[in-house]
Amino acid sequence: MEKQISQAVIKRMPRYYRYLGELLDNGVERISSNELSIRMKVTASQIRQDLNNFGGFGQQGYGYNVQYLYEEIGKILGLDRQHNIIIIGAGNLGQALANYVKFEKRGFVTIGLFDVNPAMRGLSVRGIPIKMMDELEDFLADNKVDIVALTLPKEMALDVTDRVVKAGIRAIWNFAHLDLEVPEGVVVQNVHLSDSLMQLSYNIVKHEMEQE
Amino acid sequence: MEKQISQAVIKRMPRYYRYLGELLDNGVERISSNELSIRMKVTASQIRQDLNNFGGFGQQGYGYNVQYLYEEIGKILGLDRQHNIIIIGAGNLGQALANYVKFEKRGFVTIGLFDVNPAMRGLSVRGIPIKMMDELEDFLADNKVDIVALTLPKEMALDVTDRVVKAGIRAIWNFAHLDLEVPEGVVVQNVHLSDSLMQLSYNIVKHEMEQE
Repeated sequence: MEKQISQAVIKRMPRYYRYLGELLDNGVERISSNELSIRMKVTASQIRQDLNNFGGFGQQGYGYNVQYLYEEIGKILGLDRQHNIIIIGAGNLGQALANYVKFEKRGFVTIGLFDVNPAMRGLSVRGIPIKMMDELEDFLADNKVDIVALTLPKEMALDVTDRVVKAGIRAIWNFAHLDLEVPEGVVVQNVHLSDSLMQLSYNIVKHEMEQE
Repeated sequence: MEKQISQAVIKRMPRYYRYLGELLDNGVERISSNELSIRMKVTASQIRQDLNNFGGFGQQGYGYNVQYLYEEIGKILGLDRQHNIIIIGAGNLGQALANYVKFEKRGFVTIGLFDVNPAMRGLSVRGIPIKMMDELEDFLADNKVDIVALTLPKEMALDVTDRVVKAGIRAIWNFAHLDLEVPEGVVVQNVHLSDSLMQLSYNIVKHEMEQE
């Protein structure tokens, strides 16, 4: 059953999780799909449909128990376990990711940073030492690494992807500006910043044309 | 007609642009939708449908002229003009964005960096001076700013959004971990890194369940 859930639905789940977390912070114990829909600016029917993919969680006439729904969505998103991350590419973006303490609160723990720049040898970010690329395979053999974040130039991304996949990595968070070729069974999540900027630019131009 | 094009289509356009750019770099002058479909791992019919939203560009029996299609998609995405950007939040992520010289090649030029941290006063990134937040309104009045990138904590994002919208900004590239409330006519493009990481985590868990 799980298999049929579309990535479009999955993409919305972290947003539900975020809003429910804010409701909890504000002491809200239960909420109707209508109220949630107004806050989130999606239709109540969309919310019900999305959540029904996972079994529903709502009660007719009561709505959703915020704490329960928050925890259940957390489990669906795999946030009930720890995911160890290494970041390959210790430039500004890699360091930015290593510095996000909020990721750790969600169970995403950065345990290693790697770079090719010998000037970075021995440096560390938030206590995480920067290692050189020739130490990569040993590190992967000696540590449980669940996710590799690639924050490196696209010219290096294919080679590094091959190396980590050979070493058994099954999840890549890719910031390099290309689509990775990976074997069946390896999951890739892309963050293409240029693509995002171009989509913004499209919407700017479109909006201006509508004004004219 | 333009108005009916869905964001799902728009989201795919930068990827076409990226692939066509690579084809150009490799000296490819024309390509059929079938060949493009194999490279991009989408169906040829999807490619034709997507491009037909903008008028087609292909010729029966010839395929697509790569240079022409690249330029036309560039125009659709607003890449035929310069977009001036300021980045608010000069931490690692803000500095990473300021350091992306590739954005500039596409016409996205960072002309200012802002931060609240007085220790940053007088510093600069790639020649772009870091200014203090009390200089923001004057800077926006004196310079043509098309896009504001928000790379700051979510606690500051709402207030800063209000300020830049009041100053006439109509496009926000939001990296803060919340959904901004903006008036009609202001476009927001979100990069929610936590959401992306949770989507990856969902797919890791799902894949493991399938293996069991």
